[in-house]
Parts: sequence; structure tokens; C-alpha cells
Amino acid sequence: MERVFLLLILSTIPSILSAQDTISLKWELGYSKNKNTSPRKFIPATVPGAVQLDIAKAEKYGQYYYGENWKDYLWMEDQYYTYHTTFKKPDIKPGESLYFISKGIDYQFEIYLNNEKLFYQEGMFTWVKLDLTGKLKKTNEIRIVVYPVPKKYPFPANRGQAADVVKPAVSYGWDFHPRLVPLGIWDETFLKIEQSSNIEGVWVNYELNQKLDSARLTIDAKGANLDGNQYTWKLLDEDNKEILNSSGKIISPEVEFNSELVKPNLWWPNDQGTPYLYSSVFELKDNSGNTMQTVIQKVGFRRVKLVMNSGSWDEPQGYPRSRSNPPAQFEINGRRIFAKGSNWVPPEIFPGTITRDRYNELLDLAVEANFNILRVWGGGIVNKESFYELCDEKGILIWQEFPLACNKYPDDPLYLKILGQEARSILLRLKKHPSLALWCGGNELFNNWSGMDDQSLPLRLLNSLTLQLDPSTPFIPTSPLSGMAHGDYVFRDTYDQEEVFQRMEGSHYTAYTEFGVSSPSSINVLKKIIPADELWPPKLGTSWESHHAFKAWIGNTWLMVDMLTDYFGSAKTLDELVDEGQWVQSEGLKAIYEEARRQKPHCAMALNWCFDEPWYTAANNSVINYPASPKPGFYAVRDACRPFCASAAIKKFKWNEGEEFSVRIWLLNDLYYQAPSGKVIVKLIAGNDSTELLRWEYSALPVNANLAGPTTIPIRLPEWNMDRFKLVVEMVGKPEYSSEYTLLYERRLQEENKTKVMNK
Amino acid sequence: MERVFLLLILSTIPSILSAQDTISLKWELGYSKNKNTSPRKFIPATVPGAVQLDIAKAEKYGQYYYGENWKDYLWMEDQYYTYHTTFKKPDIKPGESLYFISKGIDYQFEIYLNNEKLFYQEGMFTWVKLDLTGKLKKTNEIRIVVYPVPKKYPFPANRGQAADVVKPAVSYGWDFHPRLVPLGIWDETFLKIEQSSNIEGVWVNYELNQKLDSARLTIDAKGANLDGNQYTWKLLDEDNKEILNSSGKIISPEVEFNSELVKPNLWWPNDQGTPYLYSSVFELKDNSGNTMQTVIQKVGFRRVKLVMNSGSWDEPQGYPRSRSNPPAQFEINGRRIFAKGSNWVPPEIFPGTITRDRYNELLDLAVEANFNILRVWGGGIVNKESFYELCDEKGILIWQEFPLACNKYPDDPLYLKILGQEARSILLRLKKHPSLALWCGGNELFNNWSGMDDQSLPLRLLNSLTLQLDPSTPFIPTSPLSGMAHGDYVFRDTYDQEEVFQRMEGSHYTAYTEFGVSSPSSINVLKKIIPADELWPPKLGTSWESHHAFKAWIGNTWLMVDMLTDYFGSAKTLDELVDEGQWVQSEGLKAIYEEARRQKPHCAMALNWCFDEPWYTAANNSVINYPASPKPGFYAVRDACRPFCASAAIKKFKWNEGEEFSVRIWLLNDLYYQAPSGKVIVKLIAGNDSTELLRWEYSALPVNANLAGPTTIPIRLPEWNMDRFKLVVEMVGKPEYSSEYTLLYERRLQEENKTKVMNK
Repeated sequence: MERVFLLLILSTIPSILSAQDTISLKWELGYSKNKNTSPRKFIPATVPGAVQLDIAKAEKYGQYYYGENWKDYLWMEDQYYTYHTTFKKPDIKPGESLYFISKGIDYQFEIYLNNEKLFYQEGMFTWVKLDLTGKLKKTNEIRIVVYPVPKKYPFPANRGQAADVVKPAVSYGWDFHPRLVPLGIWDETFLKIEQSSNIEGVWVNYELNQKLDSARLTIDAKGANLDGNQYTWKLLDEDNKEILNSSGKIISPEVEFNSELVKPNLWWPNDQGTPYLYSSVFELKDNSGNTMQTVIQKVGFRRVKLVMNSGSWDEPQGYPRSRSNPPAQFEINGRRIFAKGSNWVPPEIFPGTITRDRYNELLDLAVEANFNILRVWGGGIVNKESFYELCDEKGILIWQEFPLACNKYPDDPLYLKILGQEARSILLRLKKHPSLALWCGGNELFNNWSGMDDQSLPLRLLNSLTLQLDPSTPFIPTSPLSGMAHGDYVFRDTYDQEEVFQRMEGSHYTAYTEFGVSSPSSINVLKKIIPADELWPPKLGTSWESHHAFKAWIGNTWLMVDMLTDYFGSAKTLDELVDEGQWVQSEGLKAIYEEARRQKPHCAMALNWCFDEPWYTAANNSVINYPASPKPGFYAVRDACRPFCASAAIKKFKWNEGEEFSVRIWLLNDLYYQAPSGKVIVKLIAGNDSTELLRWEYSALPVNANLAGPTTIPIRLPEWNMDRFKLVVEMVGKPEYSSEYTLLYERRLQEENKTKVMNK
Repeated sequence: MERVFLLLILSTIPSILSAQDTISLKWELGYSKNKNTSPRKFIPATVPGAVQLDIAKAEKYGQYYYGENWKDYLWMEDQYYTYHTTFKKPDIKPGESLYFISKGIDYQFEIYLNNEKLFYQEGMFTWVKLDLTGKLKKTNEIRIVVYPVPKKYPFPANRGQAADVVKPAVSYGWDFHPRLVPLGIWDETFLKIEQSSNIEGVWVNYELNQKLDSARLTIDAKGANLDGNQYTWKLLDEDNKEILNSSGKIISPEVEFNSELVKPNLWWPNDQGTPYLYSSVFELKDNSGNTMQTVIQKVGFRRVKLVMNSGSWDEPQGYPRSRSNPPAQFEINGRRIFAKGSNWVPPEIFPGTITRDRYNELLDLAVEANFNILRVWGGGIVNKESFYELCDEKGILIWQEFPLACNKYPDDPLYLKILGQEARSILLRLKKHPSLALWCGGNELFNNWSGMDDQSLPLRLLNSLTLQLDPSTPFIPTSPLSGMAHGDYVFRDTYDQEEVFQRMEGSHYTAYTEFGVSSPSSINVLKKIIPADELWPPKLGTSWESHHAFKAWIGNTWLMVDMLTDYFGSAKTLDELVDEGQWVQSEGLKAIYEEARRQKPHCAMALNWCFDEPWYTAANNSVINYPASPKPGFYAVRDACRPFCASAAIKKFKWNEGEEFSVRIWLLNDLYYQAPSGKVIVKLIAGNDSTELLRWEYSALPVNANLAGPTTIPIRLPEWNMDRFKLVVEMVGKPEYSSEYTLLYERRLQEENKTKVMNK
């Protein structure tokens, strides 16, 4: 066993390449049932993309997201795919080489040049760089043979089939994702002429001193044939002013030197300051001083730690005594922050189609939602470079999971070898990003539906590799850990009927890293995916079910018609049902985020499940409909995550006429500067009727600390001719800090009628 | 930071050396306040030993264990020590080298040959091997300069001073160990002539197949100048019959080959089978076939896993949901075993004095106690080789901690470098032993008195190194983990007065890896260490306190006079006090071990604190007095750990006349074969009076499963003219399975009198 690990340590680093000065290729795709049978025909291929999309386009399949069309794609899992392209030998000067470069081929593949097999790889995250120079003819053919979808067993078709591969499990079918398993070239792929002396990657590593006013930099550059060349390096600030520089002759296969940056502008996450980015410019020069290659990249200076939550050291007490819960509190640049954010799932079923623009529109929404963190969930892909670049720019911390989720990944040597290869590639690529704040082994691995534990070698390997390659970034083996919590995922628990309001108040965790409240999608989305004749009423066995409205998870998820009927009576129209479901999601999510924040400082994180979705769902926990349309719940979350805002600790959702009502008022404050003093008016509003409950003047709040305010004097709810009322917590003169909640109201009359009906 | 870890991986392996054919040296010792000042004089030195013992002998100090003598030794902490020896150049043939070899120098030292500095090392666990050949004169002098006791800060003098060194913290003062910090040469140290082609270590690694009927062996031999030589290897069984062999020419700097052993005799821990040991004989030969070196070592084949405890996957339930508790169940050769054992602390204050015989007498007692495991606690040393050899032979599983305990060991690069060096040496030395069943980062590191957590780099490094060097042995970062427990350490809790009987019944843990009940030491021990005029009554501020009878831990530990007086009234003599204290320890430990066993299968371990002690204590949790005298508690533990035995779930210690008494009977069964059917008679015995409570016939018990038996019908305790009574659970005709408990009895008369007294 020992040799496996020693071997891994010596493996190669992924090339860090620019797509500039590249020769693009025109690809065709064919498929066949057997590896040794040539495809019968070739169709045009989009690269990057997915084999499924090419076939669908060429053979005029219906859109996979409409109705039950996704089922038509299932046969494509079990084919061998051949990508094919030809190119003329370009003009290659002495001292130059022609490379074939791919940033991602999914999942197991062979590469041929002119019928000669050059390369084999298992793993979609390790970049490929092949020197073709010596083997070129006048006209050349590249073929890439992609193996069928890897499956641990042929049946049943479920996520467990992905339990021995480093391929996202989500695409094997999930409660928000259809069974559609991508295959093919999924990231930039091209030919490139490079000098034979060339840089593959530059790492600007640094250590900040205790006072954060000095950074000790170590610049590592790795590449081919560097010895004897020259280099220059400079660090530019945001105004492109040169701050540091270095130059010299390269006398070893790697370039490595130290530098010191005094008083660096620190990189801060959203709402905590500016995500300041410097530029590192590394130039490789020949002995005449001519620039052969320039590598430019952004650098942000921050210190990230995962520290013990307030109060965790005081638990447990007495004897026999267990350990204290592990850390779940982010400290950025010496400042403890409350992590507000969401769980990021792949924004497309076929990641080959994801563009920088797709990432950008979603990440702009994350900023709008007042988020400072996204958890890149281990069920999905590790994102493309542009995702992390945008997070660096926007100040979104990234909790990055390795692609393990809800399976028992084995101690098997082959799996460990591929995992090690992929993890090393991922680590070396992403560790450069200041947004990268936490490495995590994967999702829910220490729960019984996964069955891994602290002795599982894949997780011990990931701990070891992250320590070796990125020791200054924290690592956790999975989420949840002790003290942390996932769930609930419904507004009202299926078994004990407890609502999120009561559930959360009775909870005491260090971090709520997954919680959700489902809702139907918006009407225009539903009309886009559900055939008109199935649209109303929603039924089992229709496109509603395929799109996760029924039988998605335990209980009546995700449409929750039973629960909605219980609260509101039977919906008469689709509009009514959608309105009710989205209302419940909004109030539910607001309640959870706000209660998690009220539990600060012991609690330090609140991340709902989930932010986005990979296709148009009929019902889901997401707050954004595919591709980037916020649901009402999104705005509720945005409000609940304002750095400074009023909050009410509401006891329940449904209230009756004459029932005693009171609520405790809080000010939630994550500001890194003093929050201003002010005045609060609390009132109930039903239609035109307004009942004032409380006036309260509060002093300025200290930095990063909530204030528990007064509880309103209980009143009996008046008779209103309404089915809902608003609780408004008005921050006088500062509407941007005010909060309001819409609650369900029932008149006693109706209540009595109901009782009568039941007594008959 | 990155380079630190990459560097560590390339560091050297410790030499595995035989002390045969060695040239022993006669040493002298001197000391001085400053490093650059030569010692004023030299005194004879015992090697291995400790500088303190040499000085004490030469300067006629009182025995450190008597009275307050240990305080006289304190000044020795802050000196520089110089070991000095001379030797004549021996006859070194061509192709040979003269090596200076030491298996342990404590803690930071320099080595000089003829006034030339050859070597510096921090760390007592990494062996030293220096080639002196080229530098020899006719007469030579070796000097070893040992630095003063390393201290993180000068004051206060406590364990925290050891928080940045890889040196056992226990010697800086503990609740059972005086402040006496060893320094000097603590393991075998000699000169040796070796061929310049020589083997430094042979590792017989293996992987057992799923069915355990085949072992795939990989033999690694490392050494100097091996290339071009020959080797032969054979595996012998216990009858010295050759089972496997291999031979060949060495064509790389290391020897490595594979072999397969069909149907290996497995190594089993005590009470689970035979700890079968094979012998590996590796011979290095020159090209003429002459043997240059023979390396013989024992090999045992077993598979060890730490697996999830029964029921752990079912916890927690509901949402929000945390993780399941980590594994704390040993599985040996596919069989889940209940780990019964104890915490091993250094058996000597000065580890240089420990011999194989000292280990042997203590390990024989561990076998007699029906133990199958010892936890080598991280506050003490990693033991000498003979300890692990004896554990291999006797079938004692070893839970080995790295030398970290109750401190916040830092993320500092220098500390990590030394820790890495020492850990690698420890790993490569101990991984050969079949008894080595669990690696652990250290003691109680995830509790607030230590302050380390899952992000601490020292523990991430240890996890990483154990994975690299010994991946088939489990690793835990510390004890306790979630679900596991340490404590209580007293018979009756100081704060809430709950006794161990109630405490344990109300507990639900996967493993009780530390628990203790203190007792006074036996009379002959007390007389050996406490001056006659201090002996009675025990008082604060006397040798009783220095020997841990008072102020050792929280409450009135460890003598617990208040509690004993509360139960028994004031003791009139020392004998009475010792008898009472030892009675309480016996019943307390029995209760805890038996209740832990009743909680099987969820609970899988019971290890009391502690087995042995490093010096004569006046009162302590140990069950063995220094050096190897069992206390009565030892025999109680021995009985409670019998693989098959009767057990009674007793509710409390003290009973009154007329009080309702009942008890539930159990059969505790850890046998790996069916336990025989039989008959139980339960009775109470006070003097000559015997009251039968129950007769019960039970069927044969399945392998490795307890049987919860009936509860006796409650009776009112009769009037006895005694202060104690026995509960006897007689296994008819099988006295070796019977159990009995001695409980405290009080007549109502006395009770009424007491009440009257109190009412006055």
C-alpha cells in the first residue's frame, strides 16, 4: 500500500495555460457500441460541449428539459464516442513545439495522432498537454475516444454507480437533477505553438505576518527547459503601478525566489471591505532579453482560518467527557465573520456549455443576495477557471469540495490513484485564488447514506494532499461535522409537523451549512417544461414528477401540495399554488437565516440549500430558477442577509383571530464598523389596518455584534377580513434596515365552521 | 509553508540496527552552566541512563522517590551536560566502516569527535548513525553535549513548557509524576564495525486478502551500497521450518520483491487466539556468496481496522442533522473485539533505566489482567523496542500515541519539522510490529485544557505521515473523539456526588478510553517513601502531597480522605484507611469495566486510567504500584475483564438495613467460541448469613455476545451485625466464571443514631 502514496507525490503538476495564440480545431463526433468498432458516421461536434448535445442537435432530439425528453437521452450513456479532427502541419520554427492541450475531457479517454495512441487518462479535471512535434505529417488526424459512462454496477441506475470514480455523482440522478450523465470534451481544447522553453505555471505563495502588515512572498515558476534563460517578475497594484520586481538568470529547472510586500492591501470578502487584487507579471526571456512568454495573474492577500466557535470550548462539561466540537467559524484577516451564503450546484447539466457569462450572472446575484460565501457542493463539478476568477473579483469566499458525495468511495488503490491525480490537479489550479477559503472532502460522507468514516483512505489522502500543497487553507473531511448541521429541507417536518420557526429556535449548532425550503418554480418556467395538458392540476407520473415536484425526497417533496393544502385549503389555480408555495419558501428561508444569525456568536454560518439549479425544475429548494431567474425566496434571503437589519423571532406561520401574539425584536449586525443608533416601530398591518406593538430606541451597536431587543407586549389578534397579515419592524428613517414578515391569518368564524364540519 | 512538508517527505529513515558485534564505550559525565564553559569535573556515567541519576550517584543524593528528595534534583534541568569517552582506533578492514550508533539521546544535542563537531539533533526518538572511519586517530574522543531541559517559557514550571518540543510532557509534572525532567543518553549507544555495504532496515509489508487466507508480501530492504550484491530471504514458521524464500542480485539501491504466503497462521490478540509469529531472515551476501549481514525479525500477519460501532450509524436522527460518531470499534482479522485494557504510562521516571525485564514483568501482569490492549499514552515516551517485541509475543494490541499531551502544540515550522522527523522515525520503527494496532496524535488535544483542533497542523501532519508510511493501520488525531469519553477519575463525583455506578449507567459512549478510581498505595510502598513521622495521619504539605495524595487533581485527589470519611467514618489507622481506599477502588473499577461491557455492542472499549506508575505514589489511579506490585484493584479489574463471566448491575455502594435491594444479572461474553450453558445462583452473604435471591438456568451463549439476565425480586436487607456484605453471583460448578461484589452496609440503628446526633 505504501508505494501508492509515494508514487502520487511525484506526479506531475497541471499546466497553467493561456488560450491565446492557439490554433482552434473543428471537431466531428461519432459513436459505436464497441470500442473496436468505428463509428458508422460523424456529425458536427461543439467543443467544449457534450456528446449528448451534439447528437441531440444532429438528430433533432427534443430539448432535454422539456417534458420527459430526458429519457430519450439515456441510451447515450453506454456508447464509445470518437472525436475526430484534421489539421495541416503549421509552421513550427526551430526551438518551438506544437502542443495539443485540453483543459478537460470527461471522463475516461484515449488520444490518437495519425492512428498512433499517444495518451490515456481517467479523470476529467487533469489538464492534458501533449507534444506532437516529432510525430507530425503534412496533414494530421487527432482522434479522442471517450469511454461510456463509468458505472460501479449496471443496475439500479443511481448515484451509487459513481462510487468508484472521480466524476460528479449528481448527474447519475438526484432530487433536483435528472439522470443525464455528461461525456466528452468539456473545457477549452486546442493546438498551440510554444517555445520549447516555457512556463507551465507560476505560483505566488505568501505568508502574512501576525499584524498583517507584511507579506513574505515566495514565487515558484515551473515549466520546461527553463535552465539558462532569464526572467523578470513584477507585482502591480490595481492602478497598474509597479510595487515589487525581481529579475535574474534561471539556474535550476524551477524558478524560485522570495520577496516582501510591506503593507499589502488585503483582499476582503463581500461586505467586509474591498476584494483587492494585485497583478503578478512573470516574463520568461531568452539570453538576448527577448520575451518568450508572459504569464499574468491576479493575486490577493488574505489570511483564512477556521477557528473554534464562541462557546465551543465550554462544551461538553462533566465526566465522562467527550471532545469539543470542531471549528466552524471563519476568521478572515484576523476578523471573525458570519458566513452567509448558499450551496452552489452545477448551473448546467452539461458543464461543457458553461461560459464566463453564465457564472457572472449567477455570481452577481450572489453579491446582490449579500452573500460572502458559496459552498461548491461535492455532488457537482469543480468549476472552470472563470468561476474562481470572478469570485476573486467579487469577494465571494469559496468552500470547495472534492467531487465526492453521498457514496462510500472505496479504499481501493486504483480509485486512490485517480483521486490523488485529480485532487493534485484541482489543488494546484485553485490554490492561487484568494477566494478559495476552505477545502472539503465532499458532501455528507459521515452519514449513514454515504457510509464513509474518519478511517476512509480517500479522505485521509485528501487531508494529506491539501496539507502538502495548500497548508495555509483549512481542510475539513466533510460536511456536516459534529456541531454542524444539514437540513431540514422542508417548511414543516414531515414526521412531527414542526415548522422551521420552532425547529430552528430549538437548535444549537456551530454552522447551518445546508437547510432548505422548497417552492414551485415560477409560472413561466413551468410552462416552458410541462406540456399544457399536464400543467393543471399537478399529478404524479407526469413531467411534474420528472421535474422533482413529486417523490424527489422524503414526504411530498418538492411541491408539498399536502402541506400547502393544509395551510391554505386546496389551490384553485396554478397561480394560486405557485404563490402559496413561494410565500412559504420566502418566510421559511428568512426565518432560518435570521435565527441562525441570532445564534451568533456560537453559530457562525448559514448556507441554504440551494442557490441555483442545473435545469428548469417544477419545484425545488433553489432560490434561483434556471438559468438565472430569482424566485421570491431569493429576495427574502437577500433581506435576511443584509449586514445590518432588524429581525423578529416569529413563533409560527399560521395565526388565528383572538390568538395571543408577541414577538421578540433583534438587531442583526455583521458590520465591521459601528452600527448607528436609531428607533424601531413594530406594527401589524392587515390591509389598511395597522396595530402598533412597540417603539424602541437603541444605541449604536458595537462592531460585529447583534443586539437582542425587547419582546412586544402580547396582544390578541383583532378580527381582520384578510387571509394574511404583515409584521413590520420599521427602522425609522432607515427603510433599508427595516424588515417585514407575511403570516397566515384565519378568522375564528372559519375555524368554528371547520370544527363543525369535522364533527358531522 | 509548502516547502516544509515537501522537505519532510525526503528525510532519512531510522537505521534498524542490531546491538551484536558492537564495541561498548565507557562514559563520563560533566556539567556546566554555560555551553561554552567546560565541565569542572567528570563523574562516571551509566549509559543508557540519565544525567540526574549519574549525579545523584556520584554526589550521594537521596533516592528521588523518598520524601521530598525530588526537589533536590530540580537545579539539574538548567545545565549543559557533556558525555565524554575515549577509545582506541579498532582494526578496520578494507570495505568496512566504524559507526557511532545511538538509539536515543534526550533531547537536544551535539556530537563531537576529536573536538570536531560532527552532528546536531533535536529529538530523542530518531536514531543516530555516524560514520567515523575517515576521521579516526590512534586514540579518539567522543563528546556529546546535551542541552538543558527545553522550556517554552521559564515560569511557571509546568507541562506547558513542553508545548513546542517532541519530548514527553509528563516529566514536567503531572498528577502522578513529580517534576523530574530526564536528560541524556537513554537507549543503547555503541560503536560498531560494519561492511560498507549494509542493510539499515528490512520491512516485511503485506496485504491480506478479503478471506484472510493469503498474504501478498512486499519485502523492502534499505541500506548503504547495496547495488551489485546478492541477497537471500526466507520466512520461517514457529518451528523454524522454511515456508517461503527468495534470492537474487541487487540491482537498485533498494531491495524490493513480492511473495505470497498461502494460509498464513494469523496473529491474534490475547484471548482471541494465538499471537502467531513467523521469522523473517534476510541475508546480504557478497558476490562470492559470503554472508555479510543477517537481519532476523519477527513477523505477524493480522488485519486491523477501526470500524463504526454498532448503532452509531443510527445516530443522530431528525433534522437539522449532524454527523454520526467516528469509529471506535476494533476489528481484528475480521472479528469485532471488545478492547479491554488500560492506559500505559512510563514505568520509570528515567526511561534510560527501563530494561526488557521491567517491560516483561508489567506486560505479564497485563496478560494476567485479561487485557488485550494497552494505550501508550501521549504524555509519556514512545517505548523501547523490547516493549513492542514483548507485546507481539504476548498478544497485547498497542494503541500508540505520538508524544503530544494536554498542550497546544503550535503550527510553527520548526516544531513541525522536528515533529515530522520524530514521527517518521517512530513510524518506521514500530510499523513492523503486529501488536501496533492504532496510531493516535496524542492525549486530549481537542479539549479546552489543550486547545488544539482539527485544523492544527501538527495533527494534520501526523495523519498525513501515518497514511504515507503505515496506511493499513488506523489513525485518530486524539482521544477522546466524539462519542468516546475520558473520566471520571473518582469513585464519587466531587460536584454532584454521583457514584460511578449511577454515572456509568446513565452514559452512552462508543468507548471509555480513560476512567479511573483512585486508591492509596499499599502500606509497604507508603513506608518506603514517606518519613515515619509524616506517615499518620496523612497531611497536606508533607510527602503525602508530593506523592499525589493531596491537590493532585480537582477535589481531594487522590487520597480522597473526605469521601472515605463520609462512607466509613474517620479511619483510626493507616491500615484502615488503605483498606477502605483500596476497597473503593476495587468495586469502582469493577463497576465501570462491567457496565462498559454491558453496553456492548455499541460500546467497544474499556481502558482504565492507569495501569502502572513511574514512581512510588502515595495515592494514585494506577492498579499497580511501582515497580510492579498489583493493588487489590488489579485483581478486581482482572476479574471484570474475564472473557466470560457473570456480572451484576449494582445500583450503589452503600446500603442500609431494611432498604429494598435488587440487582440485574448479566453474562458478559467476549469469547470467540460458544459459551457453555449453565446455572446461576445469586445470593447475599454477610458473615455466616446467606440469603438466596435468584436461581437462573441459561442456555449456551452465541459467540461474542452478552446475555442480559433476570432482575432479582426486591428484598428488604436483613439486620446484619456487619459493616459490609457480599453479593455473590455463583456460576454453579464453574467458579472461574463467578463474580462477587463487596458493598457497604449500615444498620438502621446507627442511621437513627446519626439522625439524632444531627438533630441535636
